[in-house]
Amino acid sequence: MKWHELAQTHCPIARTLSIFGDRWTLLIIRNAFLRTQRFDDFQQQLGITRHLLAERLNRLVDCHVFEKVLYNQSPKRYEYKLTPKGKALYPIIIAMSDWGNTWQNEDNEFLSINYLHKKCGNITKPSVTCDCCGEELEANQVLPVFQEAE
Amino acid sequence: MKWHELAQTHCPIARTLSIFGDRWTLLIIRNAFLRTQRFDDFQQQLGITRHLLAERLNRLVDCHVFEKVLYNQSPKRYEYKLTPKGKALYPIIIAMSDWGNTWQNEDNEFLSINYLHKKCGNITKPSVTCDCCGEELEANQVLPVFQEAE
Repeated sequence: MKWHELAQTHCPIARTLSIFGDRWTLLIIRNAFLRTQRFDDFQQQLGITRHLLAERLNRLVDCHVFEKVLYNQSPKRYEYKLTPKGKALYPIIIAMSDWGNTWQNEDNEFLSINYLHKKCGNITKPSVTCDCCGEELEANQVLPVFQEAE
Repeated sequence: MKWHELAQTHCPIARTLSIFGDRWTLLIIRNAFLRTQRFDDFQQQLGITRHLLAERLNRLVDCHVFEKVLYNQSPKRYEYKLTPKGKALYPIIIAMSDWGNTWQNEDNEFLSINYLHKKCGNITKPSVTCDCCGEELEANQVLPVFQEAE
């Protein structure tokens, strides 16, 4: 399979990775969740080339993850804001954060993170759960069932 | 920032992406969750070059996501099995699946997926929830709090 064919497969993981499975794109999304919106801020925070950043941002606008909003008329300047489709990436981002926090700090060389859930006031452990029984979903307990689109 | 520096930052998302933020690596993990274990099977299913696959698999063994297990003495053949660290990637995989299922099928051109939770017998919507109050975690309700390692 060629990489560009991923967007056209029935596997939704592959379709997701067709957008995010390259260098930098998910880091751009991370920074968007940290409220970065402007090109120069993304560029400064990530330290990547302007060319690469522009290419990634344009692609994220094209696939409706970001909305490009004019905030200055002259010179023309835009902000990149997460759309509902973009905000829906949060479970992926927090799952990545939790994994890195737990598994990529084996020698305790990095700061570790707690997650404060402001709504209930408690330190929380993000976990993917079943909305019926509330239990944590484990790979061997979940069966994906494909359906024809209606 | 250079890409190879990501593994050495305090941000756990960056440390996660230092391993998985490139082409193919998360697709290899996806297939491992679908029980693929052998080099030739990965190669056939993904259709990537043997060189690229070997490089990715070796890296995943080096960082303890896969364990390399001898299953044939002569010629020497190995299987790649998810370790506990690898199995802990499931929340990322299912969050990606759910996002692609919901957001990357706008024209209903692909099969859509339901997730059967075998343990409780119901169709489930995977969601990232707070283990204290049970509510879905939203970006603006979660505050990451860094701590010094003990």
